Amino acid sequence: MTTSAYPQPMGGNELPRFAGITTFMRLPGCSTPEQLDVAVVGVPFDIGTSNRPGARFGPRGIRSESVLIRPYNMATRAAPFDSLRIDDLGDVATNPYNIADSVERIQTYYDALLERGLTTVTMGGDHTIVLPILRAMCKRHGPVGLVHVDAHTDINDTMFGERIAHGTPFRRAVEEGLVDGKRVAQIGVRGTGYQADDFDWSRQQGFRVVQVEECWHRSLDPLMAEVREQLGAGPVYLS
Amino acid sequence: MTTSAYPQPMGGNELPRFAGITTFMRLPGCSTPEQLDVAVVGVPFDIGTSNRPGARFGPRGIRSESVLIRPYNMATRAAPFDSLRIDDLGDVATNPYNIADSVERIQTYYDALLERGLTTVTMGGDHTIVLPILRAMCKRHGPVGLVHVDAHTDINDTMFGERIAHGTPFRRAVEEGLVDGKRVAQIGVRGTGYQADDFDWSRQQGFRVVQVEECWHRSLDPLMAEVREQLGAGPVYLS
Amino acid sequence: MTTSAYPQPMGGNELPRFAGITTFMRLPGCSTPEQLDVAVVGVPFDIGTSNRPGARFGPRGIRSESVLIRPYNMATRAAPFDSLRIDDLGDVATNPYNIADSVERIQTYYDALLERGLTTVTMGGDHTIVLPILRAMCKRHGPVGLVHVDAHTDINDTMFGERIAHGTPFRRAVEEGLVDGKRVAQIGVRGTGYQADDFDWSRQQGFRVVQVEECWHRSLDPLMAEVREQLGAGPVYLS
Amino acid sequence: MTTSAYPQPMGGNELPRFAGITTFMRLPGCSTPEQLDVAVVGVPFDIGTSNRPGARFGPRGIRSESVLIRPYNMATRAAPFDSLRIDDLGDVATNPYNIADSVERIQTYYDALLERGLTTVTMGGDHTIVLPILRAMCKRHGPVGLVHVDAHTDINDTMFGERIAHGTPFRRAVEEGLVDGKRVAQIGVRGTGYQADDFDWSRQQGFRVVQVEECWHRSLDPLMAEVREQLGAGPVYLS
Amino acid sequence: MTTSAYPQPMGGNELPRFAGITTFMRLPGCSTPEQLDVAVVGVPFDIGTSNRPGARFGPRGIRSESVLIRPYNMATRAAPFDSLRIDDLGDVATNPYNIADSVERIQTYYDALLERGLTTVTMGGDHTIVLPILRAMCKRHGPVGLVHVDAHTDINDTMFGERIAHGTPFRRAVEEGLVDGKRVAQIGVRGTGYQADDFDWSRQQGFRVVQVEECWHRSLDPLMAEVREQLGAGPVYLS
Amino acid sequence: MTTSAYPQPMGGNELPRFAGITTFMRLPGCSTPEQLDVAVVGVPFDIGTSNRPGARFGPRGIRSESVLIRPYNMATRAAPFDSLRIDDLGDVATNPYNIADSVERIQTYYDALLERGLTTVTMGGDHTIVLPILRAMCKRHGPVGLVHVDAHTDINDTMFGERIAHGTPFRRAVEEGLVDGKRVAQIGVRGTGYQADDFDWSRQQGFRVVQVEECWHRSLDPLMAEVREQLGAGPVYLS
Repeated sequence: MTTSAYPQPMGGNELPRFAGITTFMRLPGCSTPEQLDVAVVGVPFDIGTSNRPGARFGPRGIRSESVLIRPYNMATRAAPFDSLRIDDLGDVATNPYNIADSVERIQTYYDALLERGLTTVTMGGDHTIVLPILRAMCKRHGPVGLVHVDAHTDINDTMFGERIAHGTPFRRAVEEGLVDGKRVAQIGVRGTGYQADDFDWSRQQGFRVVQVEECWHRSLDPLMAEVREQLGAGPVYLS
Repeated sequence: MTTSAYPQPMGGNELPRFAGITTFMRLPGCSTPEQLDVAVVGVPFDIGTSNRPGARFGPRGIRSESVLIRPYNMATRAAPFDSLRIDDLGDVATNPYNIADSVERIQTYYDALLERGLTTVTMGGDHTIVLPILRAMCKRHGPVGLVHVDAHTDINDTMFGERIAHGTPFRRAVEEGLVDGKRVAQIGVRGTGYQADDFDWSRQQGFRVVQVEECWHRSLDPLMAEVREQLGAGPVYLS
Repeated sequence: MTTSAYPQPMGGNELPRFAGITTFMRLPGCSTPEQLDVAVVGVPFDIGTSNRPGARFGPRGIRSESVLIRPYNMATRAAPFDSLRIDDLGDVATNPYNIADSVERIQTYYDALLERGLTTVTMGGDHTIVLPILRAMCKRHGPVGLVHVDAHTDINDTMFGERIAHGTPFRRAVEEGLVDGKRVAQIGVRGTGYQADDFDWSRQQGFRVVQVEECWHRSLDPLMAEVREQLGAGPVYLS
Repeated sequence: MTTSAYPQPMGGNELPRFAGITTFMRLPGCSTPEQLDVAVVGVPFDIGTSNRPGARFGPRGIRSESVLIRPYNMATRAAPFDSLRIDDLGDVATNPYNIADSVERIQTYYDALLERGLTTVTMGGDHTIVLPILRAMCKRHGPVGLVHVDAHTDINDTMFGERIAHGTPFRRAVEEGLVDGKRVAQIGVRGTGYQADDFDWSRQQGFRVVQVEECWHRSLDPLMAEVREQLGAGPVYLS
Repeated sequence: MTTSAYPQPMGGNELPRFAGITTFMRLPGCSTPEQLDVAVVGVPFDIGTSNRPGARFGPRGIRSESVLIRPYNMATRAAPFDSLRIDDLGDVATNPYNIADSVERIQTYYDALLERGLTTVTMGGDHTIVLPILRAMCKRHGPVGLVHVDAHTDINDTMFGERIAHGTPFRRAVEEGLVDGKRVAQIGVRGTGYQADDFDWSRQQGFRVVQVEECWHRSLDPLMAEVREQLGAGPVYLS
Repeated sequence: MTTSAYPQPMGGNELPRFAGITTFMRLPGCSTPEQLDVAVVGVPFDIGTSNRPGARFGPRGIRSESVLIRPYNMATRAAPFDSLRIDDLGDVATNPYNIADSVERIQTYYDALLERGLTTVTMGGDHTIVLPILRAMCKRHGPVGLVHVDAHTDINDTMFGERIAHGTPFRRAVEEGLVDGKRVAQIGVRGTGYQADDFDWSRQQGFRVVQVEECWHRSLDPLMAEVREQLGAGPVYLS
């Protein structure tokens, strides 16, 4: 579809936005990892979900909606496709019936990409998938920083007796030494909990926990500046 | 389901959130009024509605969505189920064809609960149902305070010639002496009206009327403090 | 809600059809197994599903829609609530993250009901749940007959390498001797398959397989008569 | 919009089907009764409904969908707009809060049309509205014939203690002598009932009751011929 | 429907809000242009749309939702129907298959209204329709001012090789001298673009371009005051 | 994705059905025409539509739903992927704003495929697209046979004055000699028309026109046998 060394999103004046096989941002979708700097990867997975499933259709849905995105960000003037080779590699072949096997399959897939030095952008998938990706990142880079924007801290020890599910990844990540607690920020947590101290374990690990009440009625620019300073220069996982 | 003196919401690690007969917050749903401090009651009713009906399914919808709520509020640290006996008593048997008969049935139901000293939490239902509940509250407590968050003031004299409908309850409440005008706040009223002075009658009764324009771009904490001071310590109905 | 020895669906003239805590057909929902002849049981489960999940909300959805059903069938004159004690027992506590554990939990639940001699009516749930129910039935009754109305035969050996999922229960049931092949009818199978002989394994087990093309443009009465003769008088599972 | 003596539906080559103020079949919508042979009338009403409301939006919905209908029926070659003056007169001003008042308003409206000799085509509205229309028809024509296609017979004596609701109109019609029982056919009744003899009262009045099982797997032409013979030549209400 | 010289929206106490043939705000819908000061006009059109069509149903949708609007604005105390003769004139007969022909038909329609001195309120329709309306306005008034609230600037030279489509009207308007660049404000533009300088052409024409980031977390009152000063007293098109 | 000479749909045991970049039936989607016998082609187009647009999303929707289809048809035992090289070639770059240009682009695309001897399977798209495809077929094969299953005959001379739109392709096809009238069958036509003789023009061209009333309550096998005999052995377009 494109002969450029830098794969480009298909423009709306070449092919209508509603047309074509649907890849992320209408990138070519035919690259191999060795041709890329950044891999866009789908992880269709939702059997770690405690209430409403459907995130298995997340990658397909994100691809469908992404057909409207153009290559330049008019607010930040970011132009990623000018200097990075980016393409949609398709989806990890998760096992729809088995969390443990899926977690292995996801890690294997990310190990292969990270070994080549690629940066990954993931289209999930419920939050269970963070664990194998962090395992792959830690294997490659050592303990990483983390910015986690969510309503929940996802630090349960177990859910329904299971150690791996969508509410446990950051407990496991700390136990396995995958993240550097001083370089973790959890932003936007809110709502109801099982215990009045549900957010305290995170704070005990050295995480910065920002409840959503601190985000209302103000610009988030100062907070973002502080978080950038907290995280410093090393590798970071953003969820 | 629970043997505790304080009925507890079923936890997500005992029964999945999508499972079970659907009561409010997955409370046991089997209590009698004499066992409780607080009764959660559904009033499925919408034949007082001027445009789109459907609020008759309100209690069922609230119960379905409430299965995700956990017992502690992480922002306020409120823990109501630790010190109050709370359960879902089911719905009032409203008459689907007759407003006047329904209003009587609702009042009779609330009279019985209030006589026992219970606090009630109502799942509506269109705003017609406020009238019989205020009648029961006034019978028990005398004129009550009122915090009313809505787009409309609901103080019409009649609608389509009828004195009882979803837009008239606070006119009736004032006429019948059910509320103490100095202890009434109507917050968030907005939009279009029949007369340029549609909100003035409320103000003439001594209500505090806060148009929505006063709520934008600011924290509502100062307003809430003022309203708390306005209402003082007596019984209050919050809608 | 009712003092009758035979629990009765709540009538629409006592409580509007849109009102009340939602049980199957508005039965009381408060019985224990020893009080019943027939148990209506929800098995909210969909992690055995290969494509679209959501059957975990099946029992809740069936309960919501069932509020319109009245006790007598006007076509067959069946009146089940006149002679059987029937109630909704709620849902099995399936494990949302683990098929094997859920299968055990489901069998344990059904074992307890069948030991008491109850007949069960199940609200699923994807087809994975047939396996533990057949295991419980076989343990109680020996190999049972089966009427299976579906688009697929659900006789795969494995799916994605797993032996238990929504497309494998009848392969497992034959291997474990749970069903009597001569007393099995699979009706309505159709569509596309992986192999031209996808339906042949069923026929080799002695099942009667009726493709949907044989059901079009005619009354199904003669087929039903034949199936009744095929199954004879022993215990039967109908899916 | 048209100067013809016979109002015509707006054609799709003059104004696109998605355009224009939405009247029934895109008729002019500006006629007075004295200019017409047939009046299309909306009766937006649903407070006689026992379960799901919404029929109050029926006339608006029928108008929206009717924009696709063209003037000739290609199967029957019927061409009603060639020989009858037909227009959409808008809706009766029903009272959204009061069944009894609405029933009077509807009858008054139909009395005025029938006195002028118009034929009416009604867009409902729940089945409560049949009663005032039959009252107006009987006042004009004496007891009328009736063809009623429905899942229910709508012959309850009362619903929730009320004599007028969507399930009672034909009981009232018989009691008030509005229909000629020998010229009544109820077609398609089915489902579940409160009593095994729910359909028998209709038969005792001389109605022909055709359960839906008699309508399956066959052409309805012979049945329609019999019904035409049963009804003969007098005025008929078709619901 | 009303005999007033000033057409009035039908009140909810005369005809329920869900009833009647649906015109904008339930105005009479039977006026001719010569009877009016302000014409509400639908332009059902979406074949200039690059991605999701459906704006052809815009006028119908706006009419349906507008039935809830009452005549007085409670925040601004505006009472337009007291001093202006306003009615819904229906829709322009756009050509569903041909942009060029539709553009001519729209301009012809607006020319006729503007010649009579009417003010127009348009219910669109995709943004293609701005071009013929600006042509008609310029013909009547000379170059006009413009306030354009949108995510995009709609100043493409061509789309898919076409000079007239929903993303080009303001490029054409400048080329044809329809707007006075110093009296143009484009507010809220945001998102992604084809070129890092996508918004610069507008600025080169003298437009004030306000990116959405400047609108967050603050009252828009000061901006609106500046825009009012920028536009001064002449004719203005607001989109 | 596959190294077979015959491209194969991805199986559900290799990649879950909800996963992957969405091509028709999960074919590889990377072939060039010279590698194929059969091309699956999307023609996303709906600006020839008189009422509801949206068919531009038809190819994307068909691809999404097709992920469930397996390679063998269990009723007919057809196994197309065993003996034909079939793949999804993506979509024609239609012009979203211009019917005439789109019609040319579509014909050019099909000309190129037919010149190579490919058979095409089209995912539309409104019925306008039949015209350029028939033009390409006639150029390659001479006048073709046609089986057209639809509610309408699509033989209008013009629509809103336009000669090319979704209701005119078969009028144009006859005028241009693209179809052989004796080898045309239009099946299922029904509904309402502008003229009582709307279907007669088709019959005058020698088409077999089968109204839907002839299709009810019977097997269509005899009709299909007759149509096969009518069409004989030459090239046929099936819509």
